[in-house]
Amino acid sequence: MSAPLDKIKSNVRAITAYTLSPLEAPIKINQNENPFGMPAEIKQEVLRRAAEQDWARYPEFVPSSLIEKLAKYSGWRADGVMAGNGSNEMIQSVINSTVEKGVLVVLPEPTFSVYRQVIQVAGGEVASVPLKENLTFDIPRIKHEIVSRKADLAIICSPNNPTGCTISRDELTDILESTSGLIIVDQAYLELGGEDFVPLLEQYKNLVILRTFSKAMAMGGLRVGYCLAAPELITEFNKAKMPYSLNFFSMTAAEVALENLALLDPLVARMRSEKERLFVELQQIDGISPVPSEANFFVVKTAIPPKKLFEELHSRGILIRDISKAPMLSEYVRISVGTPEENDRLIQSLHEIFKQ
Amino acid sequence: MSAPLDKIKSNVRAITAYTLSPLEAPIKINQNENPFGMPAEIKQEVLRRAAEQDWARYPEFVPSSLIEKLAKYSGWRADGVMAGNGSNEMIQSVINSTVEKGVLVVLPEPTFSVYRQVIQVAGGEVASVPLKENLTFDIPRIKHEIVSRKADLAIICSPNNPTGCTISRDELTDILESTSGLIIVDQAYLELGGEDFVPLLEQYKNLVILRTFSKAMAMGGLRVGYCLAAPELITEFNKAKMPYSLNFFSMTAAEVALENLALLDPLVARMRSEKERLFVELQQIDGISPVPSEANFFVVKTAIPPKKLFEELHSRGILIRDISKAPMLSEYVRISVGTPEENDRLIQSLHEIFKQ
Repeated sequence: MSAPLDKIKSNVRAITAYTLSPLEAPIKINQNENPFGMPAEIKQEVLRRAAEQDWARYPEFVPSSLIEKLAKYSGWRADGVMAGNGSNEMIQSVINSTVEKGVLVVLPEPTFSVYRQVIQVAGGEVASVPLKENLTFDIPRIKHEIVSRKADLAIICSPNNPTGCTISRDELTDILESTSGLIIVDQAYLELGGEDFVPLLEQYKNLVILRTFSKAMAMGGLRVGYCLAAPELITEFNKAKMPYSLNFFSMTAAEVALENLALLDPLVARMRSEKERLFVELQQIDGISPVPSEANFFVVKTAIPPKKLFEELHSRGILIRDISKAPMLSEYVRISVGTPEENDRLIQSLHEIFKQ
Repeated sequence: MSAPLDKIKSNVRAITAYTLSPLEAPIKINQNENPFGMPAEIKQEVLRRAAEQDWARYPEFVPSSLIEKLAKYSGWRADGVMAGNGSNEMIQSVINSTVEKGVLVVLPEPTFSVYRQVIQVAGGEVASVPLKENLTFDIPRIKHEIVSRKADLAIICSPNNPTGCTISRDELTDILESTSGLIIVDQAYLELGGEDFVPLLEQYKNLVILRTFSKAMAMGGLRVGYCLAAPELITEFNKAKMPYSLNFFSMTAAEVALENLALLDPLVARMRSEKERLFVELQQIDGISPVPSEANFFVVKTAIPPKKLFEELHSRGILIRDISKAPMLSEYVRISVGTPEENDRLIQSLHEIFKQ
C-alpha cells in the first residue's frame, strides 16, 4: 500500500518543501542573528532559574509574568499581548484564525518566505505587490491593491527581510485608514531600525504588530515571539495558537532578558554602528553594491553570480545567504552584520574575490 | 473604530476560548505529568550543554541528531520522523496539511480537547463517536463511521485522555484495512501503557503515530513531541510546520533524555506500580469509583458533585482536574498518579471527604 497522499490538501502538496542546507562555517552571517550572543550574566541567571525548576511540569497556561513585562517593554496593554514559540507561531496563529479559501492577502514581495507558505497552507490567495526597482515598498500600489481588491489582510515586514526597506508611520496610517482589512506589520527588526508603530494601536484596531526575541535580543535559538493588537483580536488569535506553546526555559530567558536590557542595549548599538561601517566599506568594492537597509543585514548586488559569490566566501569560512531565487533578486546575496572582526574578514575576502 | 472581528473566520469565532485557572497547590495531580521530575543527572548535563551553546543562533533547520535518536528509540526509519514543539504542534501540522472545509474527521469522545479545537480552526467537520457506557472505545461504531461516511481522517488517543482506555492492535489493524483515510493514533502515554503500534507503520501507510516527551519522559515544561509515519507523509506534514519550531534547549534536553533512558525507566516503573496501588485504594472508598486505565491517570466517578470534590481537595492542598463539562463525564473528575507520598495524602483526604 502506498501512502494516501490524496488526503493531503492540494494547496499543501503544491508547496515546495522549504529546506536549508546544513552548511557550517566559522563566520555565520546568513541568518540576521545577533553576532555578539547572549550576555554571560543573562545566561547564568537563566540557567540558575532553570536548575531550580521542575521540568516535568507544564508551563503556565498564560505566561502572565512575561506578558506583563512585554506590555511594559512595548508600551501596549497586557490584554493586547500574545506570546509564543517565535514570531513564526504568531504569524501562523494570525493567519490560521483569518485565512481560508477565498481570503485575499496582499503581500509586498520579495519578503520573508514564511508568510506565503502559511497563507498557502491555510488555502488563502496571495496578491503579490513587487517592490519598486530600488527595492523599497511601492506604497501607492500596496494601498491600491488593498483597497481596490477589498483585501482581507496585508502583511508588511518593516524593516523588510531581506531588503531592509521600511514603511513610514504616515504611509502606514494612510493604509490603515483606507481599509477595514487587518494590516499585519512584522517588526522583527524594530530594535535595529524603522519606526515603532505601537502608538498607532490605540486608534487603529485593524493593526497587528509582530515582534521577536530572535534578533536584537540574541535569542534566535530559543524561539520567543509576541503579537500586539486589540484585545478582542488577541482573544481570537489565541484560539488558533496551541496551548503551552512557549516552554518554561524560553519563557524564563525572555523574562531575564527584559529585566536586563541594560546589558543588551549596547550590543544593539554596536550592531547599528557596525552596520553603518560595513555599508560604507561594501560600497567601496567594485563589483558589489549594497542596498541601504534599516536592519542588521543588506541585500548586495553582485557582478559575479550569487551562487559563485556564496561559494567563494564559504571557501574562506564565511557563510552568507544566496537569495537569488527570490523575485527581483536574481543578482543579489544577503549579508548579515557580524562582529567587527567578522566584518573585517568579510571585507578582506570580498576585496580578494573582486581582485582589488 | 472597533476591531474588525469580521476578518476572523466564523468557525474560529464560534470556539469558546480554552482557559485553565492558574490555581496552585502543594500536590499537583491535574495534568498527568511525571510526578518524580527530571532526574538531576539529566538536568545537569542539559544545563552544562546549554551553557556552552550560543543562544543567539537559530537551532538546526532539521534536528538530525535528535531525529536519529528518535528513530532508534521508536524503532522506525529516520525519514519517517518529524519532531517539534510538543505533540500539540504535531497534531496541528497533521490537521493543517489535511483538513479544510468539507473534510470529515472521526473522533471518539470524550478525548483530548485540542483535536476538536484544531479541526474546527481548520474548518473541518467532526464526526463524534461516543465511548461506550463503560468509557471504552466503541470500535464497531468507530469503524462504521469511518467506512460508511468515507471519513478522511480519524484521531484515536490510545491510551485515551481522560479515560485511559486503549485500542488493541487487532482492532486498529481492522480499521486501517477498512479505509484509505488517515488514522492518527496519539500515543502520548505509550510508555505507561497500551500497545506500541510502530510495527504496523511499515505495512499501513495510512497510520500516523504521535508521541511526546511530556509524560513518561518528565519534560512537560519543555514541549517536545514527534510524529512517526510514512516518509512521503512526513514531507507533507513538515510543510505545515513552522521552521525552527523546536528550540535548542528542548532539543538538547530530549537528546540527553534519550541518552539516559536507564535513569528514566525506573520512574516509569514506579508510576505504573503506584497506579496499581492507587486504583485499589480508590476502589475501597465508598462514594467514588475509579475507571480502569492504561495510563497514569484515572477518571473517577464521584457521588458528590465534581466541582465540590475539586474544591474539597483543593482546600486540602491537592489539585485535580474537574472534567465534568466533557461529554459523558458530568459525574467524573480526573486524577493523575502522583508520588507515593502524594497518593497517600490524596487517599487520606478522600477518606476524610467521604467520611469513612
